[in-house]
Amino acid sequence: MSDSQRRQISGFSNPTIKRLKSLREKKHRKREGHFLAEGLRILTEALDAGKTPKLLVVVEETELHPLAQKLETETLAAGGEVIETSEAIIAKLSGKTNPQSIIGIYEDHPAPLAELDRSSSGIWLVAQALRDPGNLGTILRTGDAVGAGGLILIDDCVDPFSVEAVRASMGAIFTQQIVMSPWSEFLDWLRSGPGQLVGTSLNTDTDYQSATYAPPTFLLVGNEARGLPEDYEEACDMLVKMPMMGKADSLNAAVATAVMAYEVLNQRRK
Amino acid sequence: MSDSQRRQISGFSNPTIKRLKSLREKKHRKREGHFLAEGLRILTEALDAGKTPKLLVVVEETELHPLAQKLETETLAAGGEVIETSEAIIAKLSGKTNPQSIIGIYEDHPAPLAELDRSSSGIWLVAQALRDPGNLGTILRTGDAVGAGGLILIDDCVDPFSVEAVRASMGAIFTQQIVMSPWSEFLDWLRSGPGQLVGTSLNTDTDYQSATYAPPTFLLVGNEARGLPEDYEEACDMLVKMPMMGKADSLNAAVATAVMAYEVLNQRRK
Repeated sequence: MSDSQRRQISGFSNPTIKRLKSLREKKHRKREGHFLAEGLRILTEALDAGKTPKLLVVVEETELHPLAQKLETETLAAGGEVIETSEAIIAKLSGKTNPQSIIGIYEDHPAPLAELDRSSSGIWLVAQALRDPGNLGTILRTGDAVGAGGLILIDDCVDPFSVEAVRASMGAIFTQQIVMSPWSEFLDWLRSGPGQLVGTSLNTDTDYQSATYAPPTFLLVGNEARGLPEDYEEACDMLVKMPMMGKADSLNAAVATAVMAYEVLNQRRK
Repeated sequence: MSDSQRRQISGFSNPTIKRLKSLREKKHRKREGHFLAEGLRILTEALDAGKTPKLLVVVEETELHPLAQKLETETLAAGGEVIETSEAIIAKLSGKTNPQSIIGIYEDHPAPLAELDRSSSGIWLVAQALRDPGNLGTILRTGDAVGAGGLILIDDCVDPFSVEAVRASMGAIFTQQIVMSPWSEFLDWLRSGPGQLVGTSLNTDTDYQSATYAPPTFLLVGNEARGLPEDYEEACDMLVKMPMMGKADSLNAAVATAVMAYEVLNQRRK
């Protein structure tokens, strides 16, 4: 790839650099419909999922890794732009001491509920009022691992396109369908077709392994601190709980989702 | 509880406040052998586990929650000190916008390997070179949930007594035994008695559900980015893997540990 197709930027006050930095904030992501992803591993996952960056940022005067070269070729072929800049600017953009040396800007891709094909997978993950971006990204990563169809975010969840969530997803942000929906709309959509809504809760005696999960199963997990609202639990087809042998009465939200999702997957594998 | 037994501190430059703040840094924790925990829920878990703070910090001129009153009584009864200070100082100590209104300083409690009674539990968690404090705390929380005996930290792991790890543990830092050990010492100790060492790895075809786990089972998880070193895998009695249905080839370290730990627990429940 000829360097002449790259644009060089050397100043911190360059408008493109400022724009990149602004995408760390939700309001700018929302306005632009774009988000940032960092690091060769995640950007390569994106490419494998058919997503090329609108803008690719690489470090100047550096021999690119073959995967990074491929990213550059594909970005240009898709009509995107490639920028080279200094390590210092990348470090400032990244806000980390050991920054990733490659950054991409992508179009965000929340899907409308109506576009989901519920028969395309036997497992769907649903999170309500999730607050922690690391939990959200980890749940996306788990969704990819168990072959879930996507993640449906109910009510006021943390932004799935935040830098922290994208990082924790390890690329699953590009492979999982993502829907954001108010509860009532989700429930209307769910009840318009087949689907078993299963909530994890302390308010039940049903062991998660004694239940039978019928596809498509929608696994609903609540807010980290408060769990699910009472009326949301009442709307579930089934509430289940995991055995808790110690002092605590709950698991981390991403952990609970994963233990549940693997149980559903394991029943289907048998 | 009479307020006269409290010490009032109103200045940011007070030595006790400075000391509290310094405990956010590992070197100060190590030197003092103390660590910070925040919030009524975690401090109450500590009390339930028989741990009282050396120093308890509460907000002045506030009606204490009954659980906080109990914490104050128990702290004084155990010879600890209670300090009241302003919300502004607590906020500064906490470094969060919505700080917890109660903070405790506790003695750290890493146990020597020789003190572990391996027959006291059928599951032990072992993590190698874990870097993320949230993962470490979440693994402690999962350990409590599955009734693990404790967490053994191999090689250069993140500090389990860091504020982030303590927070993510949701109190399990007080209920789980914690050991820090170099690999060779751990292996010598392990092989001096019964114990099945099980590593999660991509370098195997053994499905984690097809294996039989014999107590005491030691579940070994590797570094978030690199997994386990090759010779560590070779030292395991068994390597297992979880099914991965998507694009990614691995789970978050805390998620993988939890899925494994619940499989072991579920086999024992049958």
